Amino acid sequence: MTIRALAWNEFVHERNNKDVEALYPGGMHVAIAAALGAEGDIAVKTAVLQDAEHGLTEAALDETDVLLWWGHAAHDEVDDAIVERVAARVWGGMGLIVLHSGHFSKIFRKLMGAPCALKWREAGERERVWVVNPRHPIAAGLGENFELETEEMYGEPFSVPEPLETVFISWFQGGEVFRSGLTYRRGAGNIFYFRPGHEAYPTYHDKRVGQVLRNAVRWAFNPQPRIAKPGDAPEVPVDRAPEKITARGPSVH
Amino acid sequence: MTIRALAWNEFVHERNNKDVEALYPGGMHVAIAAALGAEGDIAVKTAVLQDAEHGLTEAALDETDVLLWWGHAAHDEVDDAIVERVAARVWGGMGLIVLHSGHFSKIFRKLMGAPCALKWREAGERERVWVVNPRHPIAAGLGENFELETEEMYGEPFSVPEPLETVFISWFQGGEVFRSGLTYRRGAGNIFYFRPGHEAYPTYHDKRVGQVLRNAVRWAFNPQPRIAKPGDAPEVPVDRAPEKITARGPSVH
Amino acid sequence: MTIRALAWNEFVHERNNKDVEALYPGGMHVAIAAALGAEGDIAVKTAVLQDAEHGLTEAALDETDVLLWWGHAAHDEVDDAIVERVAARVWGGMGLIVLHSGHFSKIFRKLMGAPCALKWREAGERERVWVVNPRHPIAAGLGENFELETEEMYGEPFSVPEPLETVFISWFQGGEVFRSGLTYRRGAGNIFYFRPGHEAYPTYHDKRVGQVLRNAVRWAFNPQPRIAKPGDAPEVPVDRAPEKITARGPSVH
Amino acid sequence: MTIRALAWNEFVHERNNKDVEALYPGGMHVAIAAALGAEGDIAVKTAVLQDAEHGLTEAALDETDVLLWWGHAAHDEVDDAIVERVAARVWGGMGLIVLHSGHFSKIFRKLMGAPCALKWREAGERERVWVVNPRHPIAAGLGENFELETEEMYGEPFSVPEPLETVFISWFQGGEVFRSGLTYRRGAGNIFYFRPGHEAYPTYHDKRVGQVLRNAVRWAFNPQPRIAKPGDAPEVPVDRAPEKITARGPSVH
Repeated sequence: MTIRALAWNEFVHERNNKDVEALYPGGMHVAIAAALGAEGDIAVKTAVLQDAEHGLTEAALDETDVLLWWGHAAHDEVDDAIVERVAARVWGGMGLIVLHSGHFSKIFRKLMGAPCALKWREAGERERVWVVNPRHPIAAGLGENFELETEEMYGEPFSVPEPLETVFISWFQGGEVFRSGLTYRRGAGNIFYFRPGHEAYPTYHDKRVGQVLRNAVRWAFNPQPRIAKPGDAPEVPVDRAPEKITARGPSVH
Repeated sequence: MTIRALAWNEFVHERNNKDVEALYPGGMHVAIAAALGAEGDIAVKTAVLQDAEHGLTEAALDETDVLLWWGHAAHDEVDDAIVERVAARVWGGMGLIVLHSGHFSKIFRKLMGAPCALKWREAGERERVWVVNPRHPIAAGLGENFELETEEMYGEPFSVPEPLETVFISWFQGGEVFRSGLTYRRGAGNIFYFRPGHEAYPTYHDKRVGQVLRNAVRWAFNPQPRIAKPGDAPEVPVDRAPEKITARGPSVH
Repeated sequence: MTIRALAWNEFVHERNNKDVEALYPGGMHVAIAAALGAEGDIAVKTAVLQDAEHGLTEAALDETDVLLWWGHAAHDEVDDAIVERVAARVWGGMGLIVLHSGHFSKIFRKLMGAPCALKWREAGERERVWVVNPRHPIAAGLGENFELETEEMYGEPFSVPEPLETVFISWFQGGEVFRSGLTYRRGAGNIFYFRPGHEAYPTYHDKRVGQVLRNAVRWAFNPQPRIAKPGDAPEVPVDRAPEKITARGPSVH
Repeated sequence: MTIRALAWNEFVHERNNKDVEALYPGGMHVAIAAALGAEGDIAVKTAVLQDAEHGLTEAALDETDVLLWWGHAAHDEVDDAIVERVAARVWGGMGLIVLHSGHFSKIFRKLMGAPCALKWREAGERERVWVVNPRHPIAAGLGENFELETEEMYGEPFSVPEPLETVFISWFQGGEVFRSGLTYRRGAGNIFYFRPGHEAYPTYHDKRVGQVLRNAVRWAFNPQPRIAKPGDAPEVPVDRAPEKITARGPSVH
């Protein structure tokens, strides 16, 4: 079964900064999409902030099994109504992969209910991503760790809720650590946060990173039917209670 | 050490409905406050929706260790800016106890990042609250279960994130079950959701319920200093990295 | 890909009790195997306590992706060495589904590290299994609940560790509740506990129960290579440290 | 209220190795006890492997609120019956702090139900312990991290169950990371694993380590009455069911 992924990118740095443009011609979403599509079981589309409705129309989301999100400089430009729409889709069963600086995106903060803050340093230092949970689906095909020679540092404390599972923890040359791969579930939606991916470095061209992205999409994919209205709170009237009862006492409703 | 609790109530039903007013003269917050103060280690204040800034001024929150929240009919009337303020306080270390229909309050939904939906029925049926986690602080002093002869039914699925711990599960006469006591942590703040407490019934006059409320406040209290700005994401410059490193590569920041 | 399941049964009640024999000719493992094989993607073998090495030889486990365990009257007759062997397999990546009275099996108690105790009553009462986590893989194809008209009651507190996820909670006619579907991970092995299945009732002939069993096997299956020696604690010598360091200070090893 | 701690030590290295003896005259338990008692709210006793019943008699455990465990070279010499006894106490509500190489102790492996394996290197390298969960009780009074200039390296994967909460993660000079502070609950017992504490280094003389140990004891202390028989699985007869029911169908019990 083909999984339908949508790689979303704010697409700002690539147009404002020549170094980034040179690393990611056409945008980071192009590189992410290429990684996702490399083994043929994932069909990838892309969308960017500048598209109508940020490319996240109801129709586009109808055809999306797993959404990937990269944002950094323009979090505030994402329309609140679109954020609500995406959240409802996640609750209904759409998977979500949040990448790197997406930790501060509106959608991630909304789904976490937490500050999602961290420490950072842009120094092109070495990051070593350790697999904490061997044989977890998102670690499939990886060795015990992999190194990214130049990455931005993100340091703990990362103020997110305790995850379902911690998959990766990063070691940084400058002395910090970071929980780099965390899983969550919100409603029927599987969520994965993956740390690496600073725009100034070739991270999304790395084969191990590509492997993680594909693994994460496969893990996040929920093949069951979507929950249409995850926020509904239906009354179960007395005459339809599973056990026979009789209404008693005062009533407010 | 005295814990400073603030019992917040939207205070709508008690003014619109004679049955509710008769059960809770002066408002449900009065009964909740009485229960909290019964053993002397908790100093209680109250606040209602109709107060200036809903009674949740920065000054009031400065003096609050644990906030209790009852709302139902007027969730939408709570100002978004106040919700942000309360969330920031929770992240900084203030405890939060969300009661009954507060499952759909803005503050709870914000902190959960999930729909927080459920099934319901107002039929005055019997609820039996089972202690799932014996010797958990929030179950202190309770037996293996306690019954509330007339309560509103809330039924699963309760679309909240997987909790840190499940403390109570309720059995309902009409055939449903519900996770009635759930713990969470968001930032430095301890959060407890407690199901019972429909406005049409005398639940907050029940001694076992009072015990749970006191236990929950004691559990949620974080005696450590508040985190002033939980959303801050500080840079750690190269020259202040814990290990000596030299900056490399391109820079975007 | 075909998943290889092994349905293990202590096979005692079916030979000692005519009612049970009549319900489960040939043993409960026959009914369980029939349910597992009903959709063709699961290849099932069976094993019983009375087999050589309880049918759990190294060779048999080499060909097992997911093991199902039903035991009750003869937990103590299971050889400790076999329990160690099965545990090591789970840690290495074999899935394990523990059924009903298997809560007190040596293997489940070993993997949980907890008493795994509960309350019980054999009265043929009605159980209603509620789906707490809609769209969880183990709840696929089920409605919001399903009823078993006659089942043994198991009541909380169920003294197991807090699970990764709670999938089902049961309502009992006699007034109790129970967490009937719980997921765990130990090492690389996925573990699911499923409550229904008393030997005196036709539970394993129920279609919804069969659906749960198949779902659980698919969920528990870990397609990645097994970890051969999950208990190994390898030294990483100084000259093979990821970063260059020099040994310092005293040494004990 | 004074908390009664019992610091248990296998007490082998200190008698076999002059370096260790010099660091810890009288044994590591002496240093641990000194740290625990430094603020007056914890009353400390000590026990060692060589004591009758390893110093873990029923009488000794009757007077223990929180047990600390240091072992390494002699795990196999701990009597299985004593391990069962200690486990039952933990399930009943006694706290347990497992230190460093205690990760491979019988009691920790029993309570985790997992291999508890890891990588290691004894090179006197620098460890930096990061607080991942600020304002957690076990991190009280600590800064954002603390350094131990010479420690043994423990590296991921640490094959333990997903914890309730991750409190500390360590960075090692040689390039590894490790989850150095993890909380669990088994039955009514709170369990904390704390990584630092190699016998060849002065770790237990470090003030920050002492702070962690005291914090952990306070956190693990469960003031509620012990559960006398945590493994009991009582029948609830039909005539004592919370709701009136009539027994139906066949019976095996």
